Amino acid sequence: MASPQEATILVGKKPTTNYVIATVMQFNQGSKRVTLKARGGAIARAVSAAIMVRDRFLQGQVDIKETRISSDRVQGQGGKDRNVAAIEIVLEKKQ
Amino acid sequence: MASPQEATILVGKKPTTNYVIATVMQFNQGSKRVTLKARGGAIARAVSAAIMVRDRFLQGQVDIKETRISSDRVQGQGGKDRNVAAIEIVLEKKQ
Repeated sequence: MASPQEATILVGKKPTTNYVIATVMQFNQGSKRVTLKARGGAIARAVSAAIMVRDRFLQGQVDIKETRISSDRVQGQGGKDRNVAAIEIVLEKKQ
Repeated sequence: MASPQEATILVGKKPTTNYVIATVMQFNQGSKRVTLKARGGAIARAVSAAIMVRDRFLQGQVDIKETRISSDRVQGQGGKDRNVAAIEIVLEKKQ
């Protein structure tokens, strides 16, 4: 399990600012590392949120430590499996 | 300038497979490294294309070497600048 100093935020279909605020709140509550995860069409939103946190809301306080892309297998409509692109963006508090 | 062994593909609004084919062709023509670049809504397409090349079309032959995200300043409608999220995915031929 993730330590209390780590948090994961799943980025979905809500407005980008929702995820920006959630990320900033996690850091303000003491998280050292926040990972944004998104799939498919939400990937662009996760990238935007990460950039907004780093360059505007917590400018100079956090770094984008790592960006991983992968392929997730999900069950589509009709029970057939399909692959969907996924991203994980790790934001870390500067020392 | 990029050496002839490096290629950059700009991912836009065309179907993902177009960019997959373009990437595979670059590698087949001798490129050692192909970078996929995308902005905004095309980011998810670039991620999908990179994954499809690595896991299906050139399975075992290329790695995703690096994924960079950033913010590009573009001139929007009406001449006002706005920021848009961008991604660069570097695919590299295995030795």
